[in-house]
Amino acid sequence: MENKPFHTLKVGVFDSGLGGLTVLSELTKVSSGVKFFYLGDTARVPYGIRSDETIIKYSLECTRFLLKFEIDILVIACNTASAKATEVLKKEFPFLKIFEVITPAVEVVSSVAKRSVGIIGTPATVKSNIYLTRLKALNPSLEVFQKPTPLLVPLVEEGITDGKVAFEVLKYYLWEWKEKIDTLLLGCTHYPLLENSIKKLFPHWGIVNSAKPLAQKLKPLLNFGGKNEIRLYFTDKTAFLEDMVKRVSLKGEVKGVEIGNLL
Amino acid sequence: MENKPFHTLKVGVFDSGLGGLTVLSELTKVSSGVKFFYLGDTARVPYGIRSDETIIKYSLECTRFLLKFEIDILVIACNTASAKATEVLKKEFPFLKIFEVITPAVEVVSSVAKRSVGIIGTPATVKSNIYLTRLKALNPSLEVFQKPTPLLVPLVEEGITDGKVAFEVLKYYLWEWKEKIDTLLLGCTHYPLLENSIKKLFPHWGIVNSAKPLAQKLKPLLNFGGKNEIRLYFTDKTAFLEDMVKRVSLKGEVKGVEIGNLL
Repeated sequence: MENKPFHTLKVGVFDSGLGGLTVLSELTKVSSGVKFFYLGDTARVPYGIRSDETIIKYSLECTRFLLKFEIDILVIACNTASAKATEVLKKEFPFLKIFEVITPAVEVVSSVAKRSVGIIGTPATVKSNIYLTRLKALNPSLEVFQKPTPLLVPLVEEGITDGKVAFEVLKYYLWEWKEKIDTLLLGCTHYPLLENSIKKLFPHWGIVNSAKPLAQKLKPLLNFGGKNEIRLYFTDKTAFLEDMVKRVSLKGEVKGVEIGNLL
Repeated sequence: MENKPFHTLKVGVFDSGLGGLTVLSELTKVSSGVKFFYLGDTARVPYGIRSDETIIKYSLECTRFLLKFEIDILVIACNTASAKATEVLKKEFPFLKIFEVITPAVEVVSSVAKRSVGIIGTPATVKSNIYLTRLKALNPSLEVFQKPTPLLVPLVEEGITDGKVAFEVLKYYLWEWKEKIDTLLLGCTHYPLLENSIKKLFPHWGIVNSAKPLAQKLKPLLNFGGKNEIRLYFTDKTAFLEDMVKRVSLKGEVKGVEIGNLL
């Protein structure tokens, strides 16, 4: 019988900023005995308005930082980086198990949507057509619309998730889909914070976000018993950082929060 | 009589992104025979949500890039960098003439405001209290209010400068000042694009932005006769870049636009 030394599973999670904390939260909820290392690139958020080259460069830098902790699994918690950098990261780091937020969401939408789906995301995510292409491949009978909604991230970061301004902005982007779609895919980790307002405006829509489907997919890999340990890293201190870190519910012990010029 | 070789004046202008092009535009309008070098840090825009350390680091990097062209004058066209990095840049580069966008705007507001002034800007600019402090120092009798308006930059970058959404967002921030102020200071280079909508909502206010007062202040230094030459540099290609470069009116010959990983 082989006598393997006990090795705690280490999971690295990176995001362009704070939005990915919602993904980390769901991951910790389905895990036990895992060490999580989260990197939020708050010094260069948002990624969704930048060029492919820059998004790939930043994603490589984030991954290299997390590799210092000898992670076994990498989770790309940012939709933009998932859309633009996954293939490059898989080629560059073939020894890493890499998961992204797009595939699990597409699988869920494909099975729950009736006839037509709307996809919203950052300009870079939408321009990549990745959700559209994957969804059409899985379920060619679905009618799929998509649209970049760049105001929603700043709106959420400003703490405006309901009220007149939120409703006007949501109507500005989504009203034309009112009778056109039955399912809305939130293609950005910030958008779940607007879910209640979207439901008030469009109560007949089904709404799917990436965090929960991803967590369900990873669950079988993440259970060893005992407490999770969580370390958080951010490349810059921004206005809502501490507030967000306090508000996000993490299952496990937060062993440290480091903020600074890390990359 | 000394025989000096003819030296063309070189002016470096940097901004966090595209907003500073409005400043460059005004500068070229009051100049002749000047070489302008503009750097927009579109790979890391926006600066206004970042920490002081990061804003200073980025401003040093932008200045060092422009120094490669042996500039004589540096214009900080970004309000956030003006507020946070001017003193450091002056200490680090004592041989450079450095101008920023805050002082000229404060001087104009101080002379045109009747009783009370509202200042809007990015979170970093407002938190620095720089406009408030300078204005109070120049004109202690003025009543001064200030407020961060972080949604306005994304709004402008999304091309929404009038209509229902723009009005709702502007009312969200400014309605409470309706009868409280007589003059509004636009403490961000993006905001002039919303000036017409602000005038429609608050026709009784005087509105001051930084670009024109700065250009008037620099005018005596910038006239040598002949054509201006302009070179534009951007650290990343973003969605509205080419559109903005086309729309901005520059007096002089644009000798080149370079976009890429420059810093």
